[in-house]
Amino acid sequence: MSQQSTEHGTAGVPDFPDLPEATVARLPEYLRALHAIADSGVDVVSSEDLAAQAGVNSAKLRKDLSYLRSNGTRGVGYDIAQLTSKIEHVLGLHQHRGVALVGVGNLGHALAGYDGFGSRGFHIAALFDADPRRVGERINGMVVHHVDHLAAVVLKEQIAIAVIATPAHAAQKVADALVGCGVTSILNFAPCVLSVPDNVDVRKVDLAIELQILSFHEHRKASLTALPGGRAAAAGNQEAVGS
Amino acid sequence: MSQQSTEHGTAGVPDFPDLPEATVARLPEYLRALHAIADSGVDVVSSEDLAAQAGVNSAKLRKDLSYLRSNGTRGVGYDIAQLTSKIEHVLGLHQHRGVALVGVGNLGHALAGYDGFGSRGFHIAALFDADPRRVGERINGMVVHHVDHLAAVVLKEQIAIAVIATPAHAAQKVADALVGCGVTSILNFAPCVLSVPDNVDVRKVDLAIELQILSFHEHRKASLTALPGGRAAAAGNQEAVGS
Repeated sequence: MSQQSTEHGTAGVPDFPDLPEATVARLPEYLRALHAIADSGVDVVSSEDLAAQAGVNSAKLRKDLSYLRSNGTRGVGYDIAQLTSKIEHVLGLHQHRGVALVGVGNLGHALAGYDGFGSRGFHIAALFDADPRRVGERINGMVVHHVDHLAAVVLKEQIAIAVIATPAHAAQKVADALVGCGVTSILNFAPCVLSVPDNVDVRKVDLAIELQILSFHEHRKASLTALPGGRAAAAGNQEAVGS
Repeated sequence: MSQQSTEHGTAGVPDFPDLPEATVARLPEYLRALHAIADSGVDVVSSEDLAAQAGVNSAKLRKDLSYLRSNGTRGVGYDIAQLTSKIEHVLGLHQHRGVALVGVGNLGHALAGYDGFGSRGFHIAALFDADPRRVGERINGMVVHHVDHLAAVVLKEQIAIAVIATPAHAAQKVADALVGCGVTSILNFAPCVLSVPDNVDVRKVDLAIELQILSFHEHRKASLTALPGGRAAAAGNQEAVGS
């Protein structure tokens, strides 16, 4: 959990709500759902419809949005434009953010070429790799820099968010270099734990861990169905638990 | 949360512990940490050292492991081989699982070529795409099948876990087809919510959402530092919250 989600947390910061980490993680889902609904030409949405589109239950959605002081209008629903703007503001998406990507192997290459970031508030602003054979390569029109030039480029481009897609053994050194030149948020795809100072936020995505969690559920369901008449009890997760 | 983590949950299933979803999500981290420590030639590990290597606090680790009835030996610690075997058993990793991958665009291609799954209990057993130009292509020695042949291959290979790496508009149809031929766990990389029956577990990884959550923290930290003397209050997440 984030350290700001204590009882007093960010209370007193003008215009900045105190949010549990789980709520923060759901706001992007609501945003995606709002965009999808707006695309269908509608201006107002009920909490039930928005919740269904976002894949959460509607009581949870209403609770989450009440933290933003967005309670909707009883019997009418939420104004889509207003709520979209509010969530975008809280997520800091009014400012299009440049992201540094370190490691352009298979996965990094795919991330560098992913064109879904632009519409969601981000662009890959700089690419780095330690392999001299990759340096100078162009991906999506951007040139790959040597990781030794990290500080110069990150400072020049005023980058605060970085993605690490290096092998595990290289990730901590890269994280240290990123933190050293002012990066304060890291998305880590390397299968290892990073040590960072308190003011740096790290999220990680480990694909094998996601599969191992699903394996647990397969094992659990198999154990339940092995019981006499157990099949009915083997209910899975209706709601996606990832992110 | 998983539906099994209710008060009674899976109680009564022989040898199958009742685990909160958050504990399940941390078990793979402990496993990775145990392997790393074992590689250094050690047989026993304290909860503090294991917790540090896994990036969680040690009280949380002891609580998690107590669900597995692994309490370690006071003043000595955990037997690494025993604990590794116990976690692998609970995660169902004693059985090497084949995974189907649908969608071999940039990201799917990277996932198909990722060689980190093998050591962690999985192998990509079948590849599918809807694009006729991709069908027949070989990735890592495996041929890409047309998605129309999904059922035949999944049934033949007895696959229960699938990864969806298609565009969002195609993902629900693919999920329906997977569920139709007996897949009960899905890892979804498409930026959309999937509707699946109760007995199917879905986890999702949305890269733009991960960045939006980091953007929130950037915005929060900027708001805090904008306050008089606010810099000290702008502590981030020490513990990674992702996965």
